[in-house]
Amino acid sequence: MAKFSTRLDEAVSKFSAICIGIDPSESELDNWELPDSAAGAREYGLRIIDSAQDRLGIIKPQVGFFERFGSLGYQTLEEIIREAKDAGLIVIADAKRGDIGSTMLGYASAWFGDDSPLRSDALTVSGYLGPESLRETLHYAQDVQGGLFILAATSNPEAAQLQQALIGGKTVAANVIDAAKEIGQGEMGVVIGATQDLKAFGIGHITERDIEIPILAPGFGAQGARLEDLKEIFGASSHRIIASMSRELTKNGPEQLGLMIDKAKAKL
Amino acid sequence: MAKFSTRLDEAVSKFSAICIGIDPSESELDNWELPDSAAGAREYGLRIIDSAQDRLGIIKPQVGFFERFGSLGYQTLEEIIREAKDAGLIVIADAKRGDIGSTMLGYASAWFGDDSPLRSDALTVSGYLGPESLRETLHYAQDVQGGLFILAATSNPEAAQLQQALIGGKTVAANVIDAAKEIGQGEMGVVIGATQDLKAFGIGHITERDIEIPILAPGFGAQGARLEDLKEIFGASSHRIIASMSRELTKNGPEQLGLMIDKAKAKL
Repeated sequence: MAKFSTRLDEAVSKFSAICIGIDPSESELDNWELPDSAAGAREYGLRIIDSAQDRLGIIKPQVGFFERFGSLGYQTLEEIIREAKDAGLIVIADAKRGDIGSTMLGYASAWFGDDSPLRSDALTVSGYLGPESLRETLHYAQDVQGGLFILAATSNPEAAQLQQALIGGKTVAANVIDAAKEIGQGEMGVVIGATQDLKAFGIGHITERDIEIPILAPGFGAQGARLEDLKEIFGASSHRIIASMSRELTKNGPEQLGLMIDKAKAKL
Repeated sequence: MAKFSTRLDEAVSKFSAICIGIDPSESELDNWELPDSAAGAREYGLRIIDSAQDRLGIIKPQVGFFERFGSLGYQTLEEIIREAKDAGLIVIADAKRGDIGSTMLGYASAWFGDDSPLRSDALTVSGYLGPESLRETLHYAQDVQGGLFILAATSNPEAAQLQQALIGGKTVAANVIDAAKEIGQGEMGVVIGATQDLKAFGIGHITERDIEIPILAPGFGAQGARLEDLKEIFGASSHRIIASMSRELTKNGPEQLGLMIDKAKAKL
């Protein structure tokens, strides 16, 4: 199997830069007239895989919406990961894990372990404990041709509070990007919200110079950023974007999902 | 049921400020001659509860070491949480969750939902997305007399990289403490490693003035801080400390665990 960054590039070339989120929240399940249970989340996830297959190359299950059903939710997530892989989809587990060394190895073996039922292609991670604390996790991921995406500038309104803090004149967000490049050997991407003012986060330079690592970008669709504006928002790093979309694609129900994906793809 | 901060105080008064970690890592299970599986983690956790009961008031399962066994690990964690509650222990789920609003509500319902099998008394959270992003989660916790502990200054060597960054002349760690006090209404504590130089993290003032919120302090024992030095390390905020210990208590095996707990308690 090729390394993660190569497989990601291939999926984008073959299908699209769009990645579909699997977010079985209470409101999403309600909108699809599914029960608010692990069984509902299962149905929701499997239908998304069915519509995404042959249209998109990447899915992103949001682990928090499975965890709310406890071990039954995790059983469902395991099944969805398995089905997605069988369908040839790349799985980015959106779990935003971050902890000290020994515990982080626990998480690494959960998401990248050889025979772990949760084994995914990539994991989102959070660097509050210092991006350096994720070095071993990255090596663990690379051993199975996996990758990481570390939070840099997130799409939520409260993000500035911490992510614009300064370290030696550089913002936390900019530091995370530099650390991801240095630690990641191309296999650690960053998460940057498409709704944010990149300059305010001290990372405006990525619009002028290629960032050289993958960018997982939530914020398109329901949160306000437009796919049509992707090149304007990210400039020189636009070709690195994995545009994550959820509600904007699912809002008209499962029957319309394939059509909504096709429409979104046409905007890029 | 009384609110979380009150129950925490009662547990400390009645038993001790020591909280025992349940960290079924590969090396811990090996040390106790248990299989490296969900069944091994179950045995490990139940034995700790058995020894902790009537000696300590608080346990802290490390979720990452359960997640590595996928849904089976979560089943085990659910059983351990249930047993701990039946034994009258306060459960701090150490999961370091942190995400944007809607997803954070998914996590909140996992750890504080009325009929969630993972329902705990408190959850550790990470504020990379801004401490403000945790306000709704705190309300969710308070509704069921639960609480949160947000990472401020962690005990790992790479922590300084981000946590000493400055926001308007104040460190990230100091900002997190202020936000926890403002948002938390006494029900959001902070995580501060006992091994760190508090002044370097810009939070030396907590040794001179009572921090007024609970401090979950890892770093005692194997990581290097000594219980005997607790008052010297935390000064005026010493009485707020929940001293988290794991390996230091478990290292001599399950038969010695009760004795090791008694010895540690005598040092405070």
